Order: sequence, then C-alpha cells, then structure tokens
Amino acid sequence: MRTYLDCIPCLLRQTLEASRMATRDETKQEIVLRRVLSKLRKTPFTKTPPEIADGIHYLIRTVTKNPDPYKKVKEKYNRIALAMYPSLKRKVAHSRNRLLTATRLAIAGNIIDFGPGVKFDIEKTVREVLVQDFAINNFDRFKRRLDESSNIIYVADNAGEIVFDRILLEELEDKKITFVVKGGPVLNDATIEDARSVGIDKIAKIARVSNGAPGTGPKRNSKRFINWLKNADVVISKGQGNYEALSEVNANIFFLLKIKCPVIARDLGAKIGDIVIK
Amino acid sequence: MRTYLDCIPCLLRQTLEASRMATRDETKQEIVLRRVLSKLRKTPFTKTPPEIADGIHYLIRTVTKNPDPYKKVKEKYNRIALAMYPSLKRKVAHSRNRLLTATRLAIAGNIIDFGPGVKFDIEKTVREVLVQDFAINNFDRFKRRLDESSNIIYVADNAGEIVFDRILLEELEDKKITFVVKGGPVLNDATIEDARSVGIDKIAKIARVSNGAPGTGPKRNSKRFINWLKNADVVISKGQGNYEALSEVNANIFFLLKIKCPVIARDLGAKIGDIVIK
Repeated sequence: MRTYLDCIPCLLRQTLEASRMATRDETKQEIVLRRVLSKLRKTPFTKTPPEIADGIHYLIRTVTKNPDPYKKVKEKYNRIALAMYPSLKRKVAHSRNRLLTATRLAIAGNIIDFGPGVKFDIEKTVREVLVQDFAINNFDRFKRRLDESSNIIYVADNAGEIVFDRILLEELEDKKITFVVKGGPVLNDATIEDARSVGIDKIAKIARVSNGAPGTGPKRNSKRFINWLKNADVVISKGQGNYEALSEVNANIFFLLKIKCPVIARDLGAKIGDIVIK
Repeated sequence: MRTYLDCIPCLLRQTLEASRMATRDETKQEIVLRRVLSKLRKTPFTKTPPEIADGIHYLIRTVTKNPDPYKKVKEKYNRIALAMYPSLKRKVAHSRNRLLTATRLAIAGNIIDFGPGVKFDIEKTVREVLVQDFAINNFDRFKRRLDESSNIIYVADNAGEIVFDRILLEELEDKKITFVVKGGPVLNDATIEDARSVGIDKIAKIARVSNGAPGTGPKRNSKRFINWLKNADVVISKGQGNYEALSEVNANIFFLLKIKCPVIARDLGAKIGDIVIK
C-alpha cells in the first residue's frame, strides 16, 4: 500500500509519541520532530507507510540514544496477555469451531498496537471480536488452505498480541510453522525476546525481518523476504503494518487484522473497528 | 502562547484539510504538504500557533491559487446562525440574567471552528453551554468592567459565530464598539464581508487585523495592534486562535472561548469541551 497524504500528520503524531516514550528531554524531542519534518518533505510517497515509519523510529532511537523506547510497554502487554492465556484457551476448548475461535482471538489481540495512537481495552475487544461480523471474511478459504498446507509462515505484529497468536498456532500443531518477528526493536512490535518470553519458540521456528536498522534481517520489501513468502504453502500476516507492507505481494497471504486507521479502512473498503480475514 | 510540539502534527492535519478545501488536485495537495513540512522544520516554536497557521494558510491560498478555500463554509454557517438568531434573541429575552445568557451564547457560537478538525453540533452546543459550569469564570469581573467601560474592542473569531457575537453586542448598545475581523480570508475566520452579511456593521465599527497576507491590516502581534488594544477600556477576545495570539498581552482582555484542543486545555488547566471567561 502506498503512503497516502493522511499518513503524514499521523506519522508526525507517532513521531512525537515515540520520542516521548524514548526520552523526557524536550529539546531532544524537538530535534527528532524537526529531523522527521526534514526527512518527510523529501520522502517519496510511493514507499509504504511502514517503510517510512521504520526509518522514523530508527532516527528516534539514534537521536535519543534509547535503543528500545517501548521495552516496558512490550513487557507489560506480554504479561497481561499471558495472564489471559488460560481463559483464552478455555474459550477455544468450549467453542464449536476451534479454528475460527482461535483466529478471532488472534485478530482480537491485534488491538494491542501503539502505532495508531488509539486507546484500547483488551478484555472488551476479545468479547466483541468473538461475536463480531467480519467486514471481509475469507475464513472458509483460509481453513481450506491451511488443511492443504504443511509449511506455514506466520508474520507477527505486536508484543502481547503474540500470546493471542500462540492460541492460533497451537491449533496448527501438525504443521511446520515459522514465526517471523522483528530483528530488533521498533514501536511495540514483537522481537525474538518477546517470542521467547511467551513460549512461541517451543512451538515454532523463529525467523526475523528488519526493524529498519542495519543488520536486523531482510527488509519486508526485499526480494529475499518476498521470495521466501512465495515459497510457503501459506502465509498468515498479522496487523495493519504487515498489510501495508505486503498487500501488493503476489503470494498465498491471508491478512488477519483489526482496522484501527481511516486510511486502511478506505483501502479495504471497511470501517474503523472492523475485523478482516482477507 | 508558544507553539507546543503537539501543535505540529495538528498543523499538518489542518494543512491537509485546508488544501483539500482549496483544490481537488492531489498533486497540488502534495506540493502544499511538502512545502509546509519544509517550512515547519525551520520555524521557531517561540512563535504563536496562529502566527504559524496564518503563514501556512497563506501558502495554501498561493499554491492552490484559491483565494478563499472556506468561502462556501463561511456563507453556510452565517446562514445557519442567522436562521437561529430569532430563537437566540428569545433565549436572552426570557433569561434572568440577559448579559450572562448573551455571553454564554457568544461562547456557544465559538464551536463553529474549522481549525481543530473536530465535528460539531451547534444546536446541541447551545443547549449545553446555556447550563454548563464554567471551567474558569470571571463573569462578575467581566460584567463590572463592562459597566465601567464606554469603549470596547471585540476581537471576533469565525463566520457563523459572529451571529452569536451580535447577540452579545446588542446587550452593549450604549457602548462604542469596534468589531475586529480578518482583513482577508484565512480558515473560516470572519472577514468584513461576513460581518456585513450578518448586520454587525449596523451596530459596531468594523476594524481589521491581518490574515497573514500583506496589506490585510496590522498583525495581531504588532505594536500598533497591541497598543490599540491597551488603550481600549476593555477587550473581548473570542476563541482559541485569539487566546493563543493574545494570552500574554498585558491589557484589559477578557477571553471568551470553548476549548477544542488538548494543548489549550493544558495551557488553561481545563478540559476539552470546557467553557471559559478569563
């Protein structure tokens, strides 16, 4: 997905929030903001929003010398979600359609997102998403494709959310699963440490994709990464950022997400708050 | 009031909205956005937000070659407010404290604002503001000062809103009133044409202040304008923009406004939606 003009004020709002997470020094926050203004005026909007955002967050970590501004937030939401894990498992166990319930829960977990600048309530979201109609519902095709697949790539989104992903992964036990996280910190995106701390390394192979900094893995728009996705039987892509980055990739990708921004809502022909399997 | 870092993403949101009002040509909208990014990165934040915004709107009008992007919106809200005028007059006539009711109505009219990017409902706002507690209430001092004054400067804010201002002006009939509007179009701010179209030229002298473009009157932060305010017995300043521009001026200014943005809320120690006589 290309970057829309509406993304620019939003990226600056995210810049300010992230720089406040990174440092209490207002002079540094102002330096960051001015450098991002300078960067954005020259950035081609043919880039995807996460490609631009990755560069912004790299700049924030560099200028503020804080290597992981969202560290505490990530730990907190891993903890909160792990505490919910037993009750989430019970919801799956007591459901009529285990895979559908696990998929809905994985989508509900996508509400844990510090990108769009929107407050969230996890418990309420879980209750809603379990009964909510899908704005786009390719679940039947998703189920069929999973049945035929042995080799799955799961492109994860945020810390905390990955506990909800684990619920879905545990319904796919007989498959060979590769769980893709960021090779370093960016926003509250899940990293290898997050995946380990919620036990996903026990049920899937962990792979990494770049966080925008050098040496953290292949970029999401690199030939290497995209060819790898194309060779999987099926790819499960979580969240808005991965949708923005991969929506035009020609592979067997199913996008699971909860819509939290007006630009993606428009791109998908849906509304904020809607849930999607596409 | 200085420009806070939070004002920057908001000014870009306003830039995008205004450039869409000015032209449907997305290429021009993008040019505007990039030029504003470029401008903001060099702007000292010791300037007030309206000083920066005036420059942005001047740039938008110049690049898009649209001299008055909010023309239709201004006419629409003058019309809507004029249609409400008889019922507003009845509310004053039937009230126990005419001046207080007229002041509340003038504040209610301040909801008609295309700056903060917030949707509004005029009828609902009027009902609420008539009974709402003030977050800051210097009405008694305001009334006393008005009683002692013969020479009043009324610094107006938006089109439509000025019909509500007229209600208050008509309670001050025995005074010599100068009604200050913008000397040219900027946002939905009231201009001389707006003041005339709602009949304010019949009850007050009209004066002008710059809209950010050359030749449209003295700037709000100019010595000439500020000295003029200082020589008035009392100044009534309407809305957020005038508060931002004049909050540090040492004159007999009463700020009448409805709070619509978090930065002003913080500056005044109040909340969004609050009403203020300060």
